[in-house]
Amino acid sequence: MRFEVTTLGTGAALPARGRFPTAQLLNMQERLFLVDCGEGTQERLRMAQVNMGRIERIFISHLHGDHYLGLMGLISSMHLQGRLKELHVHGPAGLREVIEVQLRVSQTYLRFPLHIHAVPHLSGALVHGDDQLRVTALALRHRIECTGFLFREAGHPRRLLKERVALIPHYARKAVKAGEDLLLPDGTVVPNAELTAAPPPARSYAYCSDTAFAPELVPLLQGVDLLYHEATFTQALAGRAKETMHSTAGQAATIAKQAGVGQLLLGHFSSRYKEVGPLVAEAVAIFPNSMAAQEGCTFPVGSPELHA
Amino acid sequence: MRFEVTTLGTGAALPARGRFPTAQLLNMQERLFLVDCGEGTQERLRMAQVNMGRIERIFISHLHGDHYLGLMGLISSMHLQGRLKELHVHGPAGLREVIEVQLRVSQTYLRFPLHIHAVPHLSGALVHGDDQLRVTALALRHRIECTGFLFREAGHPRRLLKERVALIPHYARKAVKAGEDLLLPDGTVVPNAELTAAPPPARSYAYCSDTAFAPELVPLLQGVDLLYHEATFTQALAGRAKETMHSTAGQAATIAKQAGVGQLLLGHFSSRYKEVGPLVAEAVAIFPNSMAAQEGCTFPVGSPELHA
Repeated sequence: MRFEVTTLGTGAALPARGRFPTAQLLNMQERLFLVDCGEGTQERLRMAQVNMGRIERIFISHLHGDHYLGLMGLISSMHLQGRLKELHVHGPAGLREVIEVQLRVSQTYLRFPLHIHAVPHLSGALVHGDDQLRVTALALRHRIECTGFLFREAGHPRRLLKERVALIPHYARKAVKAGEDLLLPDGTVVPNAELTAAPPPARSYAYCSDTAFAPELVPLLQGVDLLYHEATFTQALAGRAKETMHSTAGQAATIAKQAGVGQLLLGHFSSRYKEVGPLVAEAVAIFPNSMAAQEGCTFPVGSPELHA
Repeated sequence: MRFEVTTLGTGAALPARGRFPTAQLLNMQERLFLVDCGEGTQERLRMAQVNMGRIERIFISHLHGDHYLGLMGLISSMHLQGRLKELHVHGPAGLREVIEVQLRVSQTYLRFPLHIHAVPHLSGALVHGDDQLRVTALALRHRIECTGFLFREAGHPRRLLKERVALIPHYARKAVKAGEDLLLPDGTVVPNAELTAAPPPARSYAYCSDTAFAPELVPLLQGVDLLYHEATFTQALAGRAKETMHSTAGQAATIAKQAGVGQLLLGHFSSRYKEVGPLVAEAVAIFPNSMAAQEGCTFPVGSPELHA
């Protein structure tokens, strides 16, 4: 059961050095979601051979250009490719006007339903929920309203024990997977614990971009499998980070350590860094399980072997 | 005296096959102008090693996304690079709202003056004039208001004849270049015709994108040195061209032939064409001096040797 993140852009506001503005593709059990959509995202999707028609929902953290300017082009291309399936866009309140003005001036009448949802800037607020996925908001600290997202799998069903499967009539399997005891035709009750094993743990991915050091996030991030946290600067530029309301790699690692996450994924690197080595080194010294995002690379959320 | 066009994107609405959306860079005697600005134009400029801070004016033909969606990213990057010099943007009336809404939601307060000018959809109307350049409008035929641009050099000064230069005092040279006779200290009048030769011809570049076949443009395009004309389809898809208000390569060549232009540059190729060969062949059969635009290629306007 796939749950993975492909980082399509790892640059900060000023694109340079082969880095592109922020965008990430989430694949959760073959359902596709886009998180932020900087300029050129449709081109990045093409390079990653992703069929953009499969994207169900787009989550936009904030309205700085490097996080949303690719959205209109993507919507336009979906339209031109004949999309009919509804698309949901979640973002700050101002996003609706940005989209509607541009559809109006270009006289574009989308053939597919476009639903634009305002994201509350309130940690823990539900952004989207269905039977596989729950997305909640993370109130970040930035120069304008900026909201991160916590993606959490809905609980998996319990796993039928191989050696007992034959015992369970087909009609009863769904209920047993859901945790019910089994009532046999002769009246015998087989306790669920004798038939199933615990389900694989529900995985979670947290997306924090852009934000100043925000320790109030720690309780919300407790134990997530993979944390993406911006790391625009090194500690040497902590003053610049504070001023621009961004984080250093060291601060990102501190959040990861305090929250006890599984892995930390760094991104949003300032164009002043030719190489990301110093940023990664700074994070690893604090939280060893840190790595740098890279254009077009895919990172699993949690342990793939537990969810094979 | 340089006057040339670099085509940064030659694709149509749906980007594909390594083609990017429309944008062109004009270099007129080391003054830089941008004509249309599709998504990713700032990236194309970077690849062409153009310092975007040098761009003086941007001309936007219409508000379909593939012609303007790169504008906000470009403006944002100019701002982040510390631009202080004013920028002029000429485009359809709706462009002001598109820009202003996005500056507002991103809370961007530009440090440089941004002047947005509405372009009249009226052939021959003056869009911009200064002592080197005159830009006039070309009313195109498209699904939404779309205006092309005719860029014409202001007249060059007459050239001093080498064998007579020594005769002309320095203080009088500007006047003689401007066509005046020379009054010598002894009262002799030397007619201008004995001192100067005709200036090199003023060059002109016409930009026609996107448009249905519009023969009413022919008188306006008479004798331009280089005509860029969209050629989205081949004649085999003339019906589709008419329906979408685009042109075939044959129609572009017909306009070029009737207007007696120097050269025809084709672009805005539909993503259905893997190769541009058939489009060029169709144009060449009607107007031999036709060529295809290509990402990152530079085309001189007029004859470079006449303006060395």
